[in-house]
Amino acid sequence: MSRYVFPFEQGRASQRELLGGKGAGLSEMSFIGLPVPPGFTITTEACNRYQEMDRFPDGMMDEVWENLDLLEKKLSRNLGDPQKPLLVSVRSGAPISMPGMMDTVLNLGLNAETVEGLAQLTHNRRFALDSYRRFIQMFGNVVMHMEHSRFERLLADVKQETGARQDPDLKETDLEELIVRYKTLVRTETGREFPENTREQLEMAVKAVFDSWKNPRAIVYRRLNKIPETLGTAVNVQSMVFGNMGSTSATGVLFTRDPNTGVPGMYGEYLTNAQGEDVVAGIRTPKMIGEMAAEMPKTFQELTDVCRLLEKHYRDMQDIEFTVERETLFLLQTRTGKRTARASVKIAVDLVAEGVITRDEALLRQDPDQVARLLYRQIDPDAVLEVLAQGLPASPGAASGQVVFDADEAEERGNRGESVILVRPETTPDDIHGIVAAEGVLTSRGGMTSHAAIVARGMGKPAVTGCEAVRISLDGRKFMVGDVTVVENDVITIDGGTGRVVIGLVSTVEPGLSEEFNTLLAWADETKTLGVEANADTPEDAQAARDFGAHGVGLCRTEHMFMGQDRLPAMQNMILAETLAERQQALQKLLPMQQSDFYGILKAMDGYPVTIRLLDPPLHEFLPNIVDTEKALALAQREDRLEDAVHFEAILRRSRLLFEFNPMLGFRGVRLGIVYPEIYAMQAQAIFQAQADLVREGRHPVVEVMIPLVGIVEEFTRMRDLIHEVNEAAQEKTGQHLPYKIGTMIEIPRAALTAGAIAESAEFFSFGTNDLTQTTFGFSRDDAESKFLPHYLAEKILTENPFMVLDREGVGRLIELAVHDGRKTRPDLRVGICGEHGGDPSSIEFCHLAGLDYVSASPYRVPIARLAAAQAYLKHQPA
Amino acid sequence: MSRYVFPFEQGRASQRELLGGKGAGLSEMSFIGLPVPPGFTITTEACNRYQEMDRFPDGMMDEVWENLDLLEKKLSRNLGDPQKPLLVSVRSGAPISMPGMMDTVLNLGLNAETVEGLAQLTHNRRFALDSYRRFIQMFGNVVMHMEHSRFERLLADVKQETGARQDPDLKETDLEELIVRYKTLVRTETGREFPENTREQLEMAVKAVFDSWKNPRAIVYRRLNKIPETLGTAVNVQSMVFGNMGSTSATGVLFTRDPNTGVPGMYGEYLTNAQGEDVVAGIRTPKMIGEMAAEMPKTFQELTDVCRLLEKHYRDMQDIEFTVERETLFLLQTRTGKRTARASVKIAVDLVAEGVITRDEALLRQDPDQVARLLYRQIDPDAVLEVLAQGLPASPGAASGQVVFDADEAEERGNRGESVILVRPETTPDDIHGIVAAEGVLTSRGGMTSHAAIVARGMGKPAVTGCEAVRISLDGRKFMVGDVTVVENDVITIDGGTGRVVIGLVSTVEPGLSEEFNTLLAWADETKTLGVEANADTPEDAQAARDFGAHGVGLCRTEHMFMGQDRLPAMQNMILAETLAERQQALQKLLPMQQSDFYGILKAMDGYPVTIRLLDPPLHEFLPNIVDTEKALALAQREDRLEDAVHFEAILRRSRLLFEFNPMLGFRGVRLGIVYPEIYAMQAQAIFQAQADLVREGRHPVVEVMIPLVGIVEEFTRMRDLIHEVNEAAQEKTGQHLPYKIGTMIEIPRAALTAGAIAESAEFFSFGTNDLTQTTFGFSRDDAESKFLPHYLAEKILTENPFMVLDREGVGRLIELAVHDGRKTRPDLRVGICGEHGGDPSSIEFCHLAGLDYVSASPYRVPIARLAAAQAYLKHQPA
Repeated sequence: MSRYVFPFEQGRASQRELLGGKGAGLSEMSFIGLPVPPGFTITTEACNRYQEMDRFPDGMMDEVWENLDLLEKKLSRNLGDPQKPLLVSVRSGAPISMPGMMDTVLNLGLNAETVEGLAQLTHNRRFALDSYRRFIQMFGNVVMHMEHSRFERLLADVKQETGARQDPDLKETDLEELIVRYKTLVRTETGREFPENTREQLEMAVKAVFDSWKNPRAIVYRRLNKIPETLGTAVNVQSMVFGNMGSTSATGVLFTRDPNTGVPGMYGEYLTNAQGEDVVAGIRTPKMIGEMAAEMPKTFQELTDVCRLLEKHYRDMQDIEFTVERETLFLLQTRTGKRTARASVKIAVDLVAEGVITRDEALLRQDPDQVARLLYRQIDPDAVLEVLAQGLPASPGAASGQVVFDADEAEERGNRGESVILVRPETTPDDIHGIVAAEGVLTSRGGMTSHAAIVARGMGKPAVTGCEAVRISLDGRKFMVGDVTVVENDVITIDGGTGRVVIGLVSTVEPGLSEEFNTLLAWADETKTLGVEANADTPEDAQAARDFGAHGVGLCRTEHMFMGQDRLPAMQNMILAETLAERQQALQKLLPMQQSDFYGILKAMDGYPVTIRLLDPPLHEFLPNIVDTEKALALAQREDRLEDAVHFEAILRRSRLLFEFNPMLGFRGVRLGIVYPEIYAMQAQAIFQAQADLVREGRHPVVEVMIPLVGIVEEFTRMRDLIHEVNEAAQEKTGQHLPYKIGTMIEIPRAALTAGAIAESAEFFSFGTNDLTQTTFGFSRDDAESKFLPHYLAEKILTENPFMVLDREGVGRLIELAVHDGRKTRPDLRVGICGEHGGDPSSIEFCHLAGLDYVSASPYRVPIARLAAAQAYLKHQPA
Repeated sequence: MSRYVFPFEQGRASQRELLGGKGAGLSEMSFIGLPVPPGFTITTEACNRYQEMDRFPDGMMDEVWENLDLLEKKLSRNLGDPQKPLLVSVRSGAPISMPGMMDTVLNLGLNAETVEGLAQLTHNRRFALDSYRRFIQMFGNVVMHMEHSRFERLLADVKQETGARQDPDLKETDLEELIVRYKTLVRTETGREFPENTREQLEMAVKAVFDSWKNPRAIVYRRLNKIPETLGTAVNVQSMVFGNMGSTSATGVLFTRDPNTGVPGMYGEYLTNAQGEDVVAGIRTPKMIGEMAAEMPKTFQELTDVCRLLEKHYRDMQDIEFTVERETLFLLQTRTGKRTARASVKIAVDLVAEGVITRDEALLRQDPDQVARLLYRQIDPDAVLEVLAQGLPASPGAASGQVVFDADEAEERGNRGESVILVRPETTPDDIHGIVAAEGVLTSRGGMTSHAAIVARGMGKPAVTGCEAVRISLDGRKFMVGDVTVVENDVITIDGGTGRVVIGLVSTVEPGLSEEFNTLLAWADETKTLGVEANADTPEDAQAARDFGAHGVGLCRTEHMFMGQDRLPAMQNMILAETLAERQQALQKLLPMQQSDFYGILKAMDGYPVTIRLLDPPLHEFLPNIVDTEKALALAQREDRLEDAVHFEAILRRSRLLFEFNPMLGFRGVRLGIVYPEIYAMQAQAIFQAQADLVREGRHPVVEVMIPLVGIVEEFTRMRDLIHEVNEAAQEKTGQHLPYKIGTMIEIPRAALTAGAIAESAEFFSFGTNDLTQTTFGFSRDDAESKFLPHYLAEKILTENPFMVLDREGVGRLIELAVHDGRKTRPDLRVGICGEHGGDPSSIEFCHLAGLDYVSASPYRVPIARLAAAQAYLKHQPA
């Protein structure tokens, strides 16, 4: 037969599942000799049986009575004893904390007789009567399901009748009258008497706590926090102690360290002559815990010792509830304290220094997603905000600036040093220069993966996208949200971590890697086996990545390099070229620009590999859109600007030729390289010439050339041969030895499925999991995220957005297969991942398990990736 | 040491690779005792060595001289002997026939001395002189690379000078003069004397034949016919026989059966008193072989016997060359004869009846792609054509009709019984009703997989697409090709099998399954293990499929059912609905239409499974395009048609909402079913109600419901539950037992990768290889085929278009994996394929090997699929 009840002195911290968090904490504290009011715990198992059968399991109440007897003997008081009444609290306590979600009853055991016994025992009849009316009120509400306000109104009535201003003004007779009225209220509302039988009280209270597991707010909380329904709650029956027995009594809550900063030393507050719910109710303002040192020095010292003991015992910062009853300290709860990311890092590093925990534990205790926020400027948590609208949190960080509606203007003013926020219905590659120069971006359309979002994330620049409440009038140079109009040059603040748009300048908190954070990351580097590189398209990004601890550039996209205002025209000429000769000529203009890009990036990452992906996007992305061009053409014709008209006609003709039904699956990546080998040849030439310059300067550029979108072995081998020729020519021309590796992105399923054959000529693989996810799921990311994906997530058809968290069953299986087949062909194949997943902790864990050599994340995610990689190792280290 | 030369009597038919086709045939005929002029073969290996080293391999010529000695002894004549000269022919002969591509020299061995010996031996000096001048001409051309026309001009000169009208009018002296002039020409053109040394002649001729392996026309031929460069050609040196020695001599070619129809009996032609090249030159009109029965009865009988013997020996129809020298029959060549598809079927079936070959052999000898043409009306091969333009052969068959430019008009006139050809720049789903009613479709844009092509193929209707020479003026109701203008109502003929567009009515040949074809298909059905079903969206298609031998409908698409003019408005109302109630209302209008479709299809396929795919395409495909709607809206506004304007505005709003960047990867398939379950519920209701009606009538509908585009297990299970509910309701309502199976299309990689889990609830899989190929390759079909795929095929980056022939390495691997995992979960999982690959022989072979249960092809491909399935079994039958 199961055992359903455990006295505190028999339980341990490890029994959290069975006894709940509170019960296990009380037991553990009893076990280590801390002053805990005695009591016992009814197990979660009993709760679960109760939920199944809709009645207490057989024998449970017998065990309760047995344990009650023991408790009574220990304290020499008895439940319902008119002379020496025992009072108890009945509290819920689930294995995972659900603060405030379930019910509690205090002062249980009072009735018309025992209230007088309590009066004698405490020499304080008013206190006893007040406790009794509180009990009726609480029991009535929690156990008998009466509205709290009905009791409050009676209390208010009595106060008004007697002229009492506050509760303490009520006299004993007033309280007696109130108790009568309370009991009458119970009778008329529920049709039954308030129970005088104290055992009946206890049984009803236990049942009520069990029932509260299923109350609607608890169910919602569990769903939100992914807490299983099957856990159940335990019930703690504990002898009451009273913090409201005069000026030598008190009650309080404290953290053993500052939960905001992590600074050592107690942090909390207390109230003298009060019960726990008074602190919660906020009727009186509590005092800071530090004041206790003067007011109650003995207790303060006791508490200090208790904190030290508990931290050492639990090996972490604790969150404690305590009561002082006439100078005697009692602990009512201890649990691991919640803390900010900043505090989490500092506490863990300090605890290692104090010899309390190991480095591994310090690493494992961090939540990488939470820690990630430390890397971005944030809105000051204490700032008062006028939130205007809420969009999607597309790229974290906070930024303030004057509103501008045009990328050119954003660039001009940004470059002049002004702070501007670029506001657009949506952004296109044409707007890149504006995004670079702006403090942040706000768009009214587009999802978390819209152009603006991706570009901004790549730059570590705040962005709020898809903010549909914002109605933009580009002509009017203003936007409206409801009745509010924001005109050009008004200042707004955006918070890309939460999606908030705020009017005016808001104070922000600077980001940065604290000393403790750096210490932690150094430990992570010692621990992890997975390499961490960064996606970087500019020398600045590469430098930032290196500063954040990246050991290489895992993905250097070359297309953004053509988006600049000085380059786009040359790129467009290349695309408009009708003959090979014309195209060659345009490419020659682009060559020195590319070369200087590569020079800068390779220099910033000197000594570490830089994986350069050759041109990938469809060419039409570099042309203005068809509708705009049609308009421009019409205008040019109307105004007789013949040369312009010819130019626009050429663009239109080409745009229409290049038009694609499904650009995602179209003429891009290596397909461009195959049809126009001269493009890739120019890029390779730029790479090797930059490499030669650096070698000449005595540096150590490590070049990896990556062919995108390969799906057919022959695509790769043709391009490999081409690059090889260009390399040989460059070596001959420069007289330098220019070693390089050549590999491919694995980003379409067929590449993964034929990885064994591709690895015969490819020296490395880099999984482009953004596209691989699109093709494996058959999801166009833009379309999915704006159409059905939110519905899928809401309906739990998918538990995670596969573009954020790598899908292990589908995409992961392809990756495992490709790694296996690729390494079978070429055991020293270097394998990494360079999709956005490279910065996601769960995906990093997968990469570790799949045996990848490295992940490549955006520069600002590099510290997170280092931490997550270390955690992955620690979680799965060989026994 | 290799042996490079084999006398005919030492070779065999099986040595084709080494001796070439001609050599092996001559050897085999010698072996079985047929009258073959003696000779020997220089092997392909010698040729390959020669190509490598650019000189004869060591010892080869020694072997040639040894074999020449043996030949001389056997015939008692000697090469270069003035008294008894031996003449030989030197002919190429590759392992795979390359008719006319390489060189031949006849009458070798003649010079100033031997010509007189030949004159004495034959008692015909004129014949000897004529042979000599022919030899000089042929040798000069083939071996010494002189222009043929230079010799012809000298011949013409002499004829003019002597007043000879035809060659036979030339006298001996004229020929003597001509020989002198020929030799002078050789000397002046080449700078060397014509070789008098006969052994030198032989050596030079052998070298010339080897060289001809690399001549440009041979290289092109091999590339076109995918013949490996490494095969090489053999050289046959054979003693000459003369068909030009008077009226008892003759030369001819024949087939042992009619190669056009397959009717038994010799089919060929001959010339008396002529040499082989006279037949080829076409100077004289040859006689039909039947005339020989009267003219040369003995030889005719001998030939008849030889044919019977050869067919029995080679077990197939033969193509023979023969020469009669003074009543003696000699065979110069035998090979398996080329034949039409029609003849191929008849000959094979007849040979089985004659006990010559087995049924398995008869099946294996058919080329399914060639046989496929028998199923379509074809342009009469004898018709004289004025080919106006050449487009893509998008859907086979020939059709004639009056040109119309509008789908509505095509429908109206087609339904009146007129023959019309719908001519459009391209077609859209709005044109379906016009395509249905037209005889055929011609488009100026779009590839083999454009809308028009796919729809036409599905209907078995001729289509020529992408005919870019055709410039259409819709307003002018005409089209132009170069200077030719075709106006509305002009008659044209299109040939969808070749892509030809012809002016006027052209006589065509009716298609049909001949008795022999049906016999062959019955054998195929007895042999094959793979089931054959059909893709059919209408009762008519289903009936056609059944008539062609389909045992079920493997894919019934439901979206085409909404395209009819009576249905599209209801469908559009459904899409425009703003609320669930409005949508339900619109769906209720569609319900009876769908029900009647399903009723008809299930009835036509009674007793066989019908796999109905629920709605798949993105909803915007049912709406008019945005630009057209914008125009219509502007017009309605200008004309103050308020109600129309509101309607167009609604369409525009919805179209913009539904707009997708990559519709292929967008909001379609099961994603629609998840977001709008009421659509699938309506379809299921229509299915089960139709089923109930049929059951009530005593029929046996076999219903399979197929969910498209599943990639996540949960998508499938939700829809399964929905369909299950609808089924239960339908059973309750109709009181009928309505069993059904539910399964899914596997058409995105993730479905294949998670097939094990999907099979837990899916009862069948159907591989949608069109989409699976798109997602596995990351190729948008429309874009790929118009942009880079032609380049890929031309450059041999891909050897086959993966949308035509299933890609075994990539897509195939996914299929194998899904079949394996699916069957592991559910051993009785029914697995088929329903992409266009279901009608392609190579893909069908793959399906057989992958263990699929069935393929589903378009109705007109069903016979091909039956044949290909039988071949797949036979090729891979267990030992």
